[in-house]
Formats: sequence, C-alpha cells, structure tokens
Amino acid sequence: MRRLLVANRGEIAVRIIRAARDLGISTVAVHSKADGAALHTRLADESVEIGPSPASKSYLVTDAILAAAKDTGADAVHPGYGFLSERAGFAAAVAAAGLAFVGPTASMIERMGDKVAAREIARAAGVPTVPGTPGGVSGVDEAVSAASGIGYPVMLKAAAGGGGRGIRVVHDEDGLRTAFGQASTEAQKAFGDGTMYLERYVERARHVEVQVLGDGADAVHLFERECSLQRRRQKVVEEAVSPGIPEQVRAAMTTAAVNLCREVGYTSAGTVEFLVDDDAVGGDSGGGAPRGFFFIEMNTRIQVEHPTTELVTGIDLVAEQLRIAGGEPLRYAQTDIERRGHAIEYRVCAEDPAKDFLPQPGNVGRVTLPSGPWVRCDTWLEPDGTVPPYYDSLLAKVVVWGADRTEALARSRRALDEFTVSGIPTTAGLLRELVDEDWVAAADFHTATLEHWLSTRGETG
Amino acid sequence: MRRLLVANRGEIAVRIIRAARDLGISTVAVHSKADGAALHTRLADESVEIGPSPASKSYLVTDAILAAAKDTGADAVHPGYGFLSERAGFAAAVAAAGLAFVGPTASMIERMGDKVAAREIARAAGVPTVPGTPGGVSGVDEAVSAASGIGYPVMLKAAAGGGGRGIRVVHDEDGLRTAFGQASTEAQKAFGDGTMYLERYVERARHVEVQVLGDGADAVHLFERECSLQRRRQKVVEEAVSPGIPEQVRAAMTTAAVNLCREVGYTSAGTVEFLVDDDAVGGDSGGGAPRGFFFIEMNTRIQVEHPTTELVTGIDLVAEQLRIAGGEPLRYAQTDIERRGHAIEYRVCAEDPAKDFLPQPGNVGRVTLPSGPWVRCDTWLEPDGTVPPYYDSLLAKVVVWGADRTEALARSRRALDEFTVSGIPTTAGLLRELVDEDWVAAADFHTATLEHWLSTRGETG
Repeated sequence: MRRLLVANRGEIAVRIIRAARDLGISTVAVHSKADGAALHTRLADESVEIGPSPASKSYLVTDAILAAAKDTGADAVHPGYGFLSERAGFAAAVAAAGLAFVGPTASMIERMGDKVAAREIARAAGVPTVPGTPGGVSGVDEAVSAASGIGYPVMLKAAAGGGGRGIRVVHDEDGLRTAFGQASTEAQKAFGDGTMYLERYVERARHVEVQVLGDGADAVHLFERECSLQRRRQKVVEEAVSPGIPEQVRAAMTTAAVNLCREVGYTSAGTVEFLVDDDAVGGDSGGGAPRGFFFIEMNTRIQVEHPTTELVTGIDLVAEQLRIAGGEPLRYAQTDIERRGHAIEYRVCAEDPAKDFLPQPGNVGRVTLPSGPWVRCDTWLEPDGTVPPYYDSLLAKVVVWGADRTEALARSRRALDEFTVSGIPTTAGLLRELVDEDWVAAADFHTATLEHWLSTRGETG
Repeated sequence: MRRLLVANRGEIAVRIIRAARDLGISTVAVHSKADGAALHTRLADESVEIGPSPASKSYLVTDAILAAAKDTGADAVHPGYGFLSERAGFAAAVAAAGLAFVGPTASMIERMGDKVAAREIARAAGVPTVPGTPGGVSGVDEAVSAASGIGYPVMLKAAAGGGGRGIRVVHDEDGLRTAFGQASTEAQKAFGDGTMYLERYVERARHVEVQVLGDGADAVHLFERECSLQRRRQKVVEEAVSPGIPEQVRAAMTTAAVNLCREVGYTSAGTVEFLVDDDAVGGDSGGGAPRGFFFIEMNTRIQVEHPTTELVTGIDLVAEQLRIAGGEPLRYAQTDIERRGHAIEYRVCAEDPAKDFLPQPGNVGRVTLPSGPWVRCDTWLEPDGTVPPYYDSLLAKVVVWGADRTEALARSRRALDEFTVSGIPTTAGLLRELVDEDWVAAADFHTATLEHWLSTRGETG
C-alpha cells in the first residue's frame, strides 16, 4: 500500500491520515463542497472535491469516490466509520476497481450486517446470544407466539437494522400487535427490508464490546470497552476496560469474541458487541461457567471509541487495519497484548443540552482544546472554522488515560474544563458535570442510567 | 497540600497546574507584567502579578513570591525548572515561611549544587566518577600538576557551575594556563565563586541521565533518558530510554543512581546525570562488571525532558513530587515500575537556525499544534499571542510515544510536520530534518554529533 484514499470526513479522516503518515503511506482526502477548507482536506497530501455538501451527494457516492481514487493513483480505500463503511456493495466496488478495501471482505460485511445471520454465526461458534427467535418471523401472529415462549418484555428488531433504528420494546401482546406493523414499515423504509425478529429485553444491562483484530488465518482480542452510557442508543462516554466486570466474565467474553472471528475467518479490526446482564454479573454465578453475557452484533469497521483501547494497549488500531489490508499477517499473538491503566473517551458534540440536544451548526470563534499529560483530543475543529449542518454533530473526542480509573476520572475533569469553544454550544459542560456524579465514580450504571439522569437533571436544573 | 503556588512561567507552569488539578489541589500562578495574559496565568485558579517583565524583577524575587503565597493562602510552592528551582536559599525561605517546598531540602540542594561536594557523595556511594581532582584546585600550578596525572584533554569546570557555563576543554599545558584565569573569573562573575576543578574529557561520550524519586526513606529509579543531542551543551532532543545502552550497563547505572539517593536520603524527583563512554559501552567489557559510565552531577528538580519518562512508565512525575512534598511515602516499589515502548521529546524554540539560533521573540499569528494519537505537546503557546524577549526561547515540547523507537520516529515526522506557527521563526523545521538523518535512526551519536551535523549542514545547505 502506497497511496490511501480516505473516504470519510471529520475527526476519523484526520485520524486515518495520521496513521497512514506514520506508516509512510501517502494520503488522498475526498471532500464535499462544504468541507473544502476542513482539516482532513488540508492535512492529506492531496484532496479531491467529490460533490455537493449533503453526504448523499458526496461522501455516500461510490462512483465519485472511485473516480477520485483512480485520478489520484490511490491503491487502497479506508471507509472510516458511518457513511459507506458497512455497505457491502461499497467494499465490493472498491475490490472490483482493483483497490485494497481497508476492512473485511464484502461478503463478511454482508453476513454480519444481517443481524439474524450474525446471530446464527455466533451460535455456531458457541457464543451465547440473547434468547429470541432463531431468524425473522413471517408476521405478527408468529411474533406473538414466539414472544410468549421468550417471555415479555421483548425487543422487536429489524433484521437489516443498525444504529438503534427500527427497534421497539414491548411489554405485552397488545403492545406487540400495535408495534409490529409500524416497526416493519419503518425498517422497510430505512433498510429496504421489513423483516423483523424478536429478542428478550434485558432491563438492567450493560453494553460491553470486545475489540478484535483478525487476518483471516487467526484472530486476537484487545480486551473490552464499556459503552453503557448512552442517550437514545448513541454512545456518549466509553471506557477501556469495563469497570466492574469480573475477570472470569472478561476472560469468557473475550474468548467468545475471538472464537466468533475464527469461525468466520475475520479480517481487519472489528468489534463484537455484548449485552451483559448486570444482575447476573453482579450476582453469584454459583462457581460454574460465567453466565450473563449475550452477543448482540458485530461491527465490521473501526469504532468511534477505538482510542480508549489504543491507550490501554499501546496498539495503533488504524495502523493495524492498514497493515492487514496490505496483506501483512497479524503482528501479535494473544500473549503479546497487555493492558496498562484505564482510558475514558468523551464525545463532545455541537448540540445544545438545554434544547433537547438539538444539533447546533454554525461559525466557531476561539477554540481551546485540552492538552498536556495523558490527554488525547481527536478532532477536526479549528479556530474560526465552521460546523456544517450536513453531517453528524461530533466535534471532538476527548480521551484521557490514567494509571487507574480514579486517575483517569481526575484527568477527565481537568481536560473537560480546558475544552472551550466560542460561537456554538457544545456538550462539554454536560460531560464535565457527569464526571462528578457519584454513580459514575462507582461505575454503578447500565444502558438506561444516563437517560434517567438527564431526565432527572432536566426536572431539577 | 490544598493550594499550590507555581513559581514559574511557560510550559512548565502549565504542566504543574495540570498535575495539581489532577490531584484536586487549587493553584496560584505568579506572573510578570509581560505574562499578564499568558496561559499559565489564565489557567490557574488565581494569579498574582509579582513585578516587571525581566525575570530578575519578578520570577527571581523570593520576597515577591512569598508575599503572593501569603496573600493567596497557598500552603506549598513548586519552583519548576530554571529560575529559583536550584537555589538553596529559596527553598530555605519557603520552608521558613511555613510552606511546603516541592523539591528536596535546602541543604540537599546546596550539597548537590556544589559539583565538587556532589562528586564526593557519589564516590562515597560507590558510584563511578570521571577521573579528576577530588575537589577544587588552589590555582593554576596545582591545576597543571593535576592535569598531567589525569591526562589530556581535560575539562576545567566551575565548582559552583551549572547549565554548561564556566566550562573549558584544554588539550595541553599551554591551553590550561591560558584558560584557567579566564574561566575562574567567569565563574566568579556567574556564580559568585571562582573555584575550579578538573575532569578527564571523554571525547566520544553519551549524556545519559537516570530519573529518580525518593521520599527520604527510600528511592526508586524510573530508567534513564538519552540526552546526547545537544547544541552548546543545551539539550535539543531527548529519549526514554537510551537506545544502544546494553541492559547490563542500564542495570548498573540505574542501581548506582538509586544508591546515591539512598546515601543522602534524597527527597522528591531528581536526575542523576552520567557520561557514558561510547567506546567502552560499544566494546567488549570482558564479561566483568560494566565499565564506562561516570557520574557528572545531580539535578535536584524536575527536568525539561521529564515527559519522555512519563510516557514510557505511565507515572506522573510532577504529581509524585506533589505527593511527596505533601508528606506521602513513595507509592512504588522498584518492581512496580515498568517501561513500555519508546518516547522522544523535541524542544521547539523561537530561534532562527539560519541566524545562528538567535532568539526571535515577537507576535504570533496562527498556531497549529500537533495532536492525535501518541503525540503530547506541552506548551504555553496560543494563537495571536506574544513571545516576550525576557525569557528562554522554548515554545513547546513535542513528545511522541511509539511501541518501539522506529514507531516513535515515524510519529515524530508526523508531529513535527503538523507543527506550524506564523509570525516568528522556530526550530521545528530543523528538528523535522534531523529525524530523517540516518545517524539518528541508527542512534549513532554522541554529545558532539549534533553540533558537527549543524556545522556541516551550514556549509552544504
């Protein structure tokens, strides 16, 4: 690999350019009209405008991206996250154009992208899945019959879904009958496929994910991340590793993730997401095998929260993706991968918490990014820049490392205090407030805790 | 310790404020008139103007600093590096005012500050010293007689010296007779003491220093730093750990440093500096004890280059200084301290390499600091700021970490490329050039190599 086209924007495009540069690979940025002066556009060795500002006319246009690759002599494409990163058709088109796709094969993306098929693969690899229907249900009556076997509450999910869309939690048969048609129609509209399946809804659950790297022949894990602090199923704060997960559960969960990757011959970086039943993990497992974690899905791309894993392992995940895409075998045996300390990431967004997190694009004035010891800030933000209205609202990822979680939390306070942007509201102040909560310090939370805190805070604040 | 006065400016004041904040200690900045809007002044919880711009009227005025401490209710003082950090009288005055001095005791600073006394302490602890006179010589005739015993070339050094001043290398008796009077007069003027001593001049030597932490009762080391890349005896690039030092030499040198600290009951962070004879280390030591390293001096303060050690050990040296000054015992046994990977620091200065490194104060325009994965930038520099003419020319320390030295060098290229400042010339471009030199990649250098390269480069460039 000599010349990499980065088919993305924002902080992840900047991140990928830096990893490529570290490996001596030259870079091509693509950009929409709105991103002509953006940091990723300027930082790359070369840049190509590929279309108007809306992503549907630029960052999502396969032909425009491949034309840019051809024009600039790129021999590889990194899709980042979001946009085209999990579209099997894009990976196939990149390969068909004779370029290396930095990620797994198109067929792997397709298999894992079908949530029902992914659950089947997990079961075949001996990885526990949430009790539910083995595949899609044919209609509402089959759903009702399945739900009575699974037990309420159940989750109704789109087989082709992702990003939290097309999901309904129902508490009884009436609720299920009401929700089914709506959810299926929504899924048909969003994903072109209205097939629905059912899973048991675990009420007090943690969202924990295992980072993996595979080269097709073998796979290793890089421990797990705690991602339970979510708002509307979007992650807000992530940690590596998960606090409060017993070592026995960690060992079983990371082994399960590696087994899943080996089962399918997974290539590139990936993330295996699990639901951890908080009660089961906290409780006495009776000395038997660890219970209480269930496969949810696998993400076949780099994750937003990958820096937390990088800070505890010292391994550059994007550089490893590039090496693997270039045909190199895995450079690590499992025993080579060690963790040190604790890392926490805060997603700072251009949103106004006082206005129900409404995105707030606009012109930026002065910017002070946190820096100094053990603070990493991955961002595209610059003084006197613009937050365009066309894309997601992520401004920066403030990532801190500490010798232990207490030290990492102390550095979180300092780093978030230093973060200031004039001209637009951001979520930095809210995140700073969060760090001081006792339940955060105690790691006493599950996936619904943050929303509960936000609603309580709204009433009293 | 609840409230810390930071008796310094620039990047180290910012660094100390951040460490204090991580420990929940509030901070008081002191500043000269020129530094009224400086980052350290704004970042602290409170700030006090202590005098006019020249350091001799502000940062070097003990009474003004102690008055500021009293007025703001500070209970501790951190001196940083430079300025008053190694003046025993300042440490004594701080203690006499009932405040904690963040550093060793005044008497320790005094003993180690006298280079002749320090050599005696080293010898008593069984630490090898460079062959030379046991103490100061009474005059030029005694110097000539001693030199014939030591063997030419010899170094003539001021007993009260430091920072590379008052040093002469002489190659024969005539040279010694000529240099002695000048050097002694210079030392009298600079340090108030004209006493000179002699050491053998090791021509191909590396400058390697061991980081230590002591609490008076015990001491540990945090491995060593390579500091051979110097210009006019000022360090330019530093690494942790030293490349090319055999493990046997590392073990013996770090043990010697700890023994020295135990001998004197050293308290706080400190650095034990050694000269490593390149030929002796590279050659066959015959299976016996490692030869070829010699004690030079001990610095009783935090060093400019301390971040390299922090990045490989994960230990916050400034926070440890604060803890020890607050009366806490050492938190680490030697076996707790492990190193991971390799770190390199580049000192970016407001100097013009094309004008013999003339300092270039002035108004700064746009600033882009390197950031992202495994890059730490310790700085006080801000967009639209000013580099005042009164202080040293250090703008920023760009510090990178890599899983190995090769990865650290690759990240050095990326980080130095990203560093841009408009309005004033800096040394960033020169440092970037340096990274590409084969002899840097091979770590084939000693203390004279950088100056030789600069002079060659000057001729051909």
